[in-house]
Amino acid sequence: MLLLWDILGTFVFCVSGAIAGRQNQMDWFGMFVVALVTGTGGGMLRSLLIGDLPPAFLKDPIYFIVAGVATVVAVVGANAWSRMRRAVSVMDALGLGLFVVTGIRVAQAHDLPGWAALALGVISATFGGLLRDVIRNEVPLVLRKEIYATACIVGGLALLGLDALGMPEESALIATTGIVVIIRLLAIRYAIHQSEA
Amino acid sequence: MLLLWDILGTFVFCVSGAIAGRQNQMDWFGMFVVALVTGTGGGMLRSLLIGDLPPAFLKDPIYFIVAGVATVVAVVGANAWSRMRRAVSVMDALGLGLFVVTGIRVAQAHDLPGWAALALGVISATFGGLLRDVIRNEVPLVLRKEIYATACIVGGLALLGLDALGMPEESALIATTGIVVIIRLLAIRYAIHQSEA
Amino acid sequence: MLLLWDILGTFVFCVSGAIAGRQNQMDWFGMFVVALVTGTGGGMLRSLLIGDLPPAFLKDPIYFIVAGVATVVAVVGANAWSRMRRAVSVMDALGLGLFVVTGIRVAQAHDLPGWAALALGVISATFGGLLRDVIRNEVPLVLRKEIYATACIVGGLALLGLDALGMPEESALIATTGIVVIIRLLAIRYAIHQSEA
Repeated sequence: MLLLWDILGTFVFCVSGAIAGRQNQMDWFGMFVVALVTGTGGGMLRSLLIGDLPPAFLKDPIYFIVAGVATVVAVVGANAWSRMRRAVSVMDALGLGLFVVTGIRVAQAHDLPGWAALALGVISATFGGLLRDVIRNEVPLVLRKEIYATACIVGGLALLGLDALGMPEESALIATTGIVVIIRLLAIRYAIHQSEA
Repeated sequence: MLLLWDILGTFVFCVSGAIAGRQNQMDWFGMFVVALVTGTGGGMLRSLLIGDLPPAFLKDPIYFIVAGVATVVAVVGANAWSRMRRAVSVMDALGLGLFVVTGIRVAQAHDLPGWAALALGVISATFGGLLRDVIRNEVPLVLRKEIYATACIVGGLALLGLDALGMPEESALIATTGIVVIIRLLAIRYAIHQSEA
Repeated sequence: MLLLWDILGTFVFCVSGAIAGRQNQMDWFGMFVVALVTGTGGGMLRSLLIGDLPPAFLKDPIYFIVAGVATVVAVVGANAWSRMRRAVSVMDALGLGLFVVTGIRVAQAHDLPGWAALALGVISATFGGLLRDVIRNEVPLVLRKEIYATACIVGGLALLGLDALGMPEESALIATTGIVVIIRLLAIRYAIHQSEA
């Protein structure tokens, strides 16, 4: 289930990266690289920080394939995306939720204490998007939108809380991811902090 | 004593990061992240480079607490800061001096030769500020002000020299930090290279 | 022979970094740092990703010396460089070819499968230039010029192919580097994708 979460999260972030690259008039290859960096950047930094090397994207070619598919999706669906701002926001929120969960679980598997696992979860969820923005020469979204990272923190705390309550794994993962998505989408809907992804 | 140096250095860099984030109209969370990145970025890269994982900020929550306090200090003292340019410059110079020393000592503890320890000391002292500027989408200060990094190099050389002379540890640390601070402040005072932090 | 490749590649990228720093009105020290980052960034990330620590530039002072020489070359030859755009392009193309080869060989020596070795080769060849551009606050060249990274990928594939054919090591290295240089220079010459380094 964690693997599914990881692949799904990678895919939605890759699509967001590819769309962002497209907005910067990048060509196919540039879009692919930004997709890959956005989708795997969080996991890569996490691997570096806990010494779990090489990182996943060098262990399994699936990440390159996902980034490639995401690039195609971004190009083919270009017209559709511009009409579907909401879909992009939902996917981005979903990616945050999925990666907070996987980040925390991986950190726990490496025996990090709860507060450090929470920090790694938030880093995993937000670092890919931060790299995406730095490479594109913009001040990162995550630093400008309070509710962006706050949603991750609340979701991560919820996961640790559900663990303490003995919630079964599947339910805990789904509930946590849902909490992050809902907080993030509510923040966008009610335009909290400039909002709008 | 090294721990005190590390915490003090982290604090002054966190404050500089939080103030910088504020100038970019970031909200509380963004300021906190920039503070954390500025204060712990140098030590994080050092840990990655020598394979001393996970880095300190994931081993001890004190760094998050320091970054939080620094953010509060930056917000509460906002009016004061704008009147106290000199205080900010002094703190920044102090951070450089403190981190050069801790960086070199950590590198030596990992059996790196003197020249590599000096390089790691300079990296430790300057990388946090470099990240702060890259994230905020500016050409890093350290690359534009010669005396910025030169002060670190001279201080680092002094530390290695004092070691060779058999200077007691406490005196060597204080002398080295003082040298960096004085060089940096003299550079600002006499406006060497555009100067002004 | 790999060591020679590595040093040559480091030198040409260091020169490109120093010239780039000069264009941003950096002083000597800033130019030196950008030179060092451009020349060693690719190898550093590769070392971090495969856990081969500390990275080469902290094991052998030759990289600092090369970056220093490159800075001097960039400053002394400043007038010459502005008249020799072609020379800079050739050096940059050469650096790509040299680093793809060394990156792949190092990855293979760490038992990575072929596709991951190819990915690491491309990362080794392009990451230094990406850092150079991010630090200078520009959207990275590698993301804007398709043929830039494509040349690396084709060259890397050629190296793996030549290995499979049992080509002797020296011939394989020279042939691969030549392929990358030729593709890149043809791309510039025929102005494929805006081209012009």
